[in-house]
Amino acid sequence: MEVRAVAGPLAATFADVRAAAGRIAGVVHRTPVLTSQALDAACGGARVFLKCESFQRTGAFKFRGAYNRLSQFTPEERTGGVITYSSGNHAQGIALAARELGIPATIVMPTDAIAPKVAATKGYGAGIEWIDRQTENGYETAARIARERGSTFVPPFDDAGIIAGQGTAALELCEQAGEPLDVFLAPLGGGGLLSGCALAMHGTSPRTVLYGVETETANDWVLSFAAGHPVRIPPPMTVADGIKTEVPGDLTFPIIYSLVTDVRTVSDDEVLHAMRLVLFRLKILIEPTAAVPLALLLSGRLGDLAGQRVGVLISGGNVDPALLAEVAGQTEASPAADSGSR
Amino acid sequence: MEVRAVAGPLAATFADVRAAAGRIAGVVHRTPVLTSQALDAACGGARVFLKCESFQRTGAFKFRGAYNRLSQFTPEERTGGVITYSSGNHAQGIALAARELGIPATIVMPTDAIAPKVAATKGYGAGIEWIDRQTENGYETAARIARERGSTFVPPFDDAGIIAGQGTAALELCEQAGEPLDVFLAPLGGGGLLSGCALAMHGTSPRTVLYGVETETANDWVLSFAAGHPVRIPPPMTVADGIKTEVPGDLTFPIIYSLVTDVRTVSDDEVLHAMRLVLFRLKILIEPTAAVPLALLLSGRLGDLAGQRVGVLISGGNVDPALLAEVAGQTEASPAADSGSR
Repeated sequence: MEVRAVAGPLAATFADVRAAAGRIAGVVHRTPVLTSQALDAACGGARVFLKCESFQRTGAFKFRGAYNRLSQFTPEERTGGVITYSSGNHAQGIALAARELGIPATIVMPTDAIAPKVAATKGYGAGIEWIDRQTENGYETAARIARERGSTFVPPFDDAGIIAGQGTAALELCEQAGEPLDVFLAPLGGGGLLSGCALAMHGTSPRTVLYGVETETANDWVLSFAAGHPVRIPPPMTVADGIKTEVPGDLTFPIIYSLVTDVRTVSDDEVLHAMRLVLFRLKILIEPTAAVPLALLLSGRLGDLAGQRVGVLISGGNVDPALLAEVAGQTEASPAADSGSR
Repeated sequence: MEVRAVAGPLAATFADVRAAAGRIAGVVHRTPVLTSQALDAACGGARVFLKCESFQRTGAFKFRGAYNRLSQFTPEERTGGVITYSSGNHAQGIALAARELGIPATIVMPTDAIAPKVAATKGYGAGIEWIDRQTENGYETAARIARERGSTFVPPFDDAGIIAGQGTAALELCEQAGEPLDVFLAPLGGGGLLSGCALAMHGTSPRTVLYGVETETANDWVLSFAAGHPVRIPPPMTVADGIKTEVPGDLTFPIIYSLVTDVRTVSDDEVLHAMRLVLFRLKILIEPTAAVPLALLLSGRLGDLAGQRVGVLISGGNVDPALLAEVAGQTEASPAADSGSR
């Protein structure tokens, strides 16, 4: 069932997600789904299933879309290589997927990218082209280099192959959770992850209520849902660095607008609280962006969820050590875990 | 095969470990075994299998032995209740096992126990009796209360039921790893965990080389192995708070001395490095004690392990937030993960 009508066909379909699942099998990890009695209690008695892409190769879901997209390159495209612009998880996803497929990769990175992310991207064998964020536009630089070298530019989210690849995470979650989910939540930045997951849920479990979650300051999707079309906001400040996009994608917006029940927001403080709880109770490290949907669940603002089966997409686990030191230092969390896996 | 001869029968057998596995099934979590290409590379090409008791209920393996022991209480013992002395993971294991079995529990705790551990123990419904470590002996206080109330004292490691219960972790690891392991490592404090695991490995995979690992300052087992009998050391200072015991147990020493290949040591710095690597690369939180065997593996001092199948018992994930803040703040670790689970 469509929640809202949109004009024209969507950029990707459930069949594309299933085809992506076949392409990535054996290369992309089938990440574990964790459950925790302590977490269930903290979420008002919901039965929570965490799909932990923090355990994915490169530490985030981005490897799924990158591998799905690059594995469909033509022989000419493979020779010309791939290029993208990213300071974060997409850079690592593209770099590792390119290495696995023997495709030359160039990543345009800002000079202020943090050292461990640069090191990881280099470690996967990608070439780096530096830009100064103050004076250059990374996307324009990448597009120019692509033209000069005959490389193919792969954007971080607004691409049918990327969208279908990210959706495989939700497809796996549905299989791993067994019985259908009542509710599904994912973080919402550019919308690549949620649009793919929405297609997967729509095809697998059409009655599941779907939520996208962003932080209060990064509320471009809330405004866009209200307007019925993509609305641009100024560059937002938020601890959830993975969802700092300014406007929904041209391809991701129609999918999410038509299939996702609603978009909600949480505060940065709620995000850090959720990250801490997961760290000290479930013993796993997740990045702030991954804690965004969990923060909404913990807030109680979704109403009574007692006994409901709730799937949560944990998007990644790449955390700046300085932020982690701050999060750990502030906490009063109990060290007792009560978690399992399936 | 016995490595060294000891006089008299051992306190527990492989059959006891198997019986324990039947008793704890469905209550104690079958924790996941994690693998990581990044970790394998850091360990000289070994194929490392991490048995993650950090995901166990209460956040540590201690729940296994506690539940196995308490589930064998007679009706009279159940009525009289259980008592123990612990400031750490054993307290939580006993408290939760007692709650699950409907047995009243009293935990003698030192007044300087850290707040989250006290909160967790209380949260499982146990009564707390406080002692001042400077002026009172916790074991004597617990024994006195046991006599006064007709309660049963359950020690943290030198007990056949505790030993057999802890051994179930290694039994599961052997099943989950598939092919036999070439090497197995576990942290070594009182010896409850390693003695049970040694019985399990001896019965399941008798050719596996077994190592116990302690920190340089907490080297009572190294000295005891050299002497051929338990040797007492002064209270050690080490970051690995779970292995601060001063002397091997009367029951655990003969088992470990006869079945374990060797005991080795690592430095506190090596322990913190291993903890950091696991946190930022594998995205899991493990406590310093759990990082002790991994630190040895990472040191390269076990020689060439390329292609060898190495099982590592990750004992728990209960970390003092202040220590974690320090560990995170010092690190230069890369955020890229490359891990999976089975």
